[in-house]
Amino acid sequence: MCPGVSNGLHETTDVNPNATTEELSETHVLLDEQNIAPAARVQQRAQHDAADSSNGRPLNPYAPRYGDLLSNTSSFKVIESTLREGEQFANAFFDLETKVKIATALSDFGVDYIELTSPAASAESRAHCEAICKLGLKAKILTHIRCNMEDAKIAVETGVDGVDVVIGTSQQLRTHSHGKDMTWIIKTAVEVIEFVKSKGIEIRFSSEDSFRSDLVDLLSVYRAVDKIGVNRVGIADTVGCANPRQVYELVRTLRGCVRADIECHFHEDTGCSIANAFCALEAGATHIDTSVLGIGERNGITPLGGFLARMYVCDPEYVKGKYNLPAIREIENLVADAVQISVPFNNHITGFCAFTHKAGIHAKAILANPSTYEILNPQDFGMSRYVSIGHRLTGWNAVKSRVNQLNLELTDEQVKDVTSKIKELADVKTQSMEDVDALLRVYHRAIHAGELEVGQSKVLDKLIQRHRSASNASSNGTAPETNGHTNGVKTHANGHANGEPTAKRARVNGA
Amino acid sequence: MCPGVSNGLHETTDVNPNATTEELSETHVLLDEQNIAPAARVQQRAQHDAADSSNGRPLNPYAPRYGDLLSNTSSFKVIESTLREGEQFANAFFDLETKVKIATALSDFGVDYIELTSPAASAESRAHCEAICKLGLKAKILTHIRCNMEDAKIAVETGVDGVDVVIGTSQQLRTHSHGKDMTWIIKTAVEVIEFVKSKGIEIRFSSEDSFRSDLVDLLSVYRAVDKIGVNRVGIADTVGCANPRQVYELVRTLRGCVRADIECHFHEDTGCSIANAFCALEAGATHIDTSVLGIGERNGITPLGGFLARMYVCDPEYVKGKYNLPAIREIENLVADAVQISVPFNNHITGFCAFTHKAGIHAKAILANPSTYEILNPQDFGMSRYVSIGHRLTGWNAVKSRVNQLNLELTDEQVKDVTSKIKELADVKTQSMEDVDALLRVYHRAIHAGELEVGQSKVLDKLIQRHRSASNASSNGTAPETNGHTNGVKTHANGHANGEPTAKRARVNGA
Repeated sequence: MCPGVSNGLHETTDVNPNATTEELSETHVLLDEQNIAPAARVQQRAQHDAADSSNGRPLNPYAPRYGDLLSNTSSFKVIESTLREGEQFANAFFDLETKVKIATALSDFGVDYIELTSPAASAESRAHCEAICKLGLKAKILTHIRCNMEDAKIAVETGVDGVDVVIGTSQQLRTHSHGKDMTWIIKTAVEVIEFVKSKGIEIRFSSEDSFRSDLVDLLSVYRAVDKIGVNRVGIADTVGCANPRQVYELVRTLRGCVRADIECHFHEDTGCSIANAFCALEAGATHIDTSVLGIGERNGITPLGGFLARMYVCDPEYVKGKYNLPAIREIENLVADAVQISVPFNNHITGFCAFTHKAGIHAKAILANPSTYEILNPQDFGMSRYVSIGHRLTGWNAVKSRVNQLNLELTDEQVKDVTSKIKELADVKTQSMEDVDALLRVYHRAIHAGELEVGQSKVLDKLIQRHRSASNASSNGTAPETNGHTNGVKTHANGHANGEPTAKRARVNGA
Repeated sequence: MCPGVSNGLHETTDVNPNATTEELSETHVLLDEQNIAPAARVQQRAQHDAADSSNGRPLNPYAPRYGDLLSNTSSFKVIESTLREGEQFANAFFDLETKVKIATALSDFGVDYIELTSPAASAESRAHCEAICKLGLKAKILTHIRCNMEDAKIAVETGVDGVDVVIGTSQQLRTHSHGKDMTWIIKTAVEVIEFVKSKGIEIRFSSEDSFRSDLVDLLSVYRAVDKIGVNRVGIADTVGCANPRQVYELVRTLRGCVRADIECHFHEDTGCSIANAFCALEAGATHIDTSVLGIGERNGITPLGGFLARMYVCDPEYVKGKYNLPAIREIENLVADAVQISVPFNNHITGFCAFTHKAGIHAKAILANPSTYEILNPQDFGMSRYVSIGHRLTGWNAVKSRVNQLNLELTDEQVKDVTSKIKELADVKTQSMEDVDALLRVYHRAIHAGELEVGQSKVLDKLIQRHRSASNASSNGTAPETNGHTNGVKTHANGHANGEPTAKRARVNGA
């Protein structure tokens, strides 16, 4: 878990992409298909690490550095709950057509499971559940019910591949929600589980509000349901109070008590839903609940995109091999439209600024090697990288890159000269990409026509002024400024145009 | 760190609010003012815990359960970097007037430090820095510079209270950014630190890209600068690759090597910026860098609001006592306007759905006791709680709450009856709050006029139909639907109206 590696993700991939991909894919095929025991997995991982360290270069510096007995960070499964947890989002009122679109897109994307609202919730919920089961999707279909026989009976008749049962175990929920004690909970859970299993479909038992529940109560009920062969046990941070190390400890303890798979569900109230999911997998959890854009009750749960960004850093080949990452943007837009929200400006991967570089020091290094300031390769997510240059923090290396893109010929000395003019102008007024490009073209033309030399700032000012007057006259009042910063940005912040260039950003060489 | 507590945050506060507040405040005053040694702090915390456990009830169940030698989760400081890191956000082009507004608001809010862009970046950056130093704000003013004497000389002349120097230490940055080796880095760092110290102001030394740096390199440079009396050393997850347990381990290791305070800076690329900040404090870090709404290079850093939500859960009295939490919304709107973005729908605390409850099972329990499904008390943040009822997942308890708010008199049996009608209608078409209120009023009037009895679903349908025709006729085409869901929501998603009720949400008793 210590730092101390000198190769970045992009760099490692660049050095020997084929070998890396094949070696890792092979490991994952083994893990997935043969369902090997944890001890064997660790050995395999250790051999893998050893083979790798023999050439003095770790395969992926962000993977755990030593074989980890419990970690499933390279073998996790996603239970996508946009159509259950997401339906509890304030704005979500999905009709069947929308649900079918979302379920199909998620299945094509590669999620392992899709979880639907309880068919006991309403007649329409039931009809939707039955319809989605009939689509024949690759992803398994689950439904999420309260822990009682009536709900279970309705659920098993819908055609689902599995049932997720849940009941509150914290004192708060026992007192103020369902009013049952632990004896009742265990007895009812066993009844429901045996019934669902008798129908030949998967069954998960989860406590609700697990992180405010008594540890002994929790382990007692999990051990009881594990004994009768539940497929998965679940831990839910229902109120979003859990922190990462606490999650690691609870999951690790649970891992020592049950044979079943462990599913985890984390709310985002205090900003830890992605980190908690990661730590849960490190501690031996196997399945993570997500929703698209994180939508759910209150401000939601672990977002699908952000979670995969986190896991990609740990094991890019597993994530890229299993999920169709470039489709994430389309799925997010589909759900955003369905619930009438905008994709947040800072959304992981697809937010409009996720791959935008601005500081001069960053821009220079990014142009030399993207791994310097990027841990996610935008191409793997179908995204592009942008370097912003029309501002007072700009540097001459970023400007030089734009000069090359425009096919202009300037020496380094000339680029430095024009950069200082960009900074000077940006100190006075925001410079759009068009403003900067115009300046570069004016400078280039004047230098090559012999009208201008390096350092003649006042001559350049006059040339700029002359150019502006000319273009204002020819454009009949539609001054270049109106196409610049303000409009471009407003479009971004309000629409779903995440990831598209605005006028402020220059596209960089092929990325 | 284990779960196993049965009192929620709201509940605990409710039982004995005065005692809790006073006891905790007293502790914090001691911690802040006397700057006591870690060992004494632990003892104090242990005595505190012991006093508390003697009455069988933990003071705050989300605080660490055992005295933690290193943890500063109850004594951290915020270095607010909206005017430095935030200025690297794609859309940020702050003029002086905006900077003054933001700095003043942050200082009034209670942040400990405000960090500004390097005065070496441009003439205007320098002028802004000098102007903000002259405001006489309560918060200390820092500026952030590259590790070289030229930048340091400019910085100390601006009137700042301290200088934050930074240099890349990873192989990536050493190769592709500044091109210097560790010997050069240590030599230059020592020079710059001694110079800044000689001017009588604070000095921090931070590595850049710390989590991809060699551990021995890192510790060597930190020990060297600690020896000459640097005030703070900094760790920066510049590319957003770090995970929480890795952060804990690196900070804990560093804590054992230096006497200086430890500042941490986390990027959000892989969704861990808040969790990493929390784990850093658990491991002994003292200062956390934040920005408003998390704005910064790419998709930014630890957001101020989300970070304080996380810390509030751990120690509400410390956070409430030190920061003016209800002002967070105004500060976020100020910055959002300045950089032309919308507050994300799911923003921590102030996102429009942060305190909205929808699922029937949640709504029922929330009405009985808010701590069941809330870990943050919305009142402490100047926010309100809403329970949404016009949907197919609604429950009769939530409907009853609305009936009471409308001063209607219905028995529980009648409320259950009208709830089934709400669910039936919501299965067909989205029901706005106005739709639901109209239904409740029609039902109430008819029941009391003897036109309707419980269970007469078809009679009720006719009454609703009659009401709709009447109101359509009287409203001249402005049907109630146009005031409902769609418009209310669009306003929210595009504007800054975070936290305001839409037509879909009912306000609950006094919260």
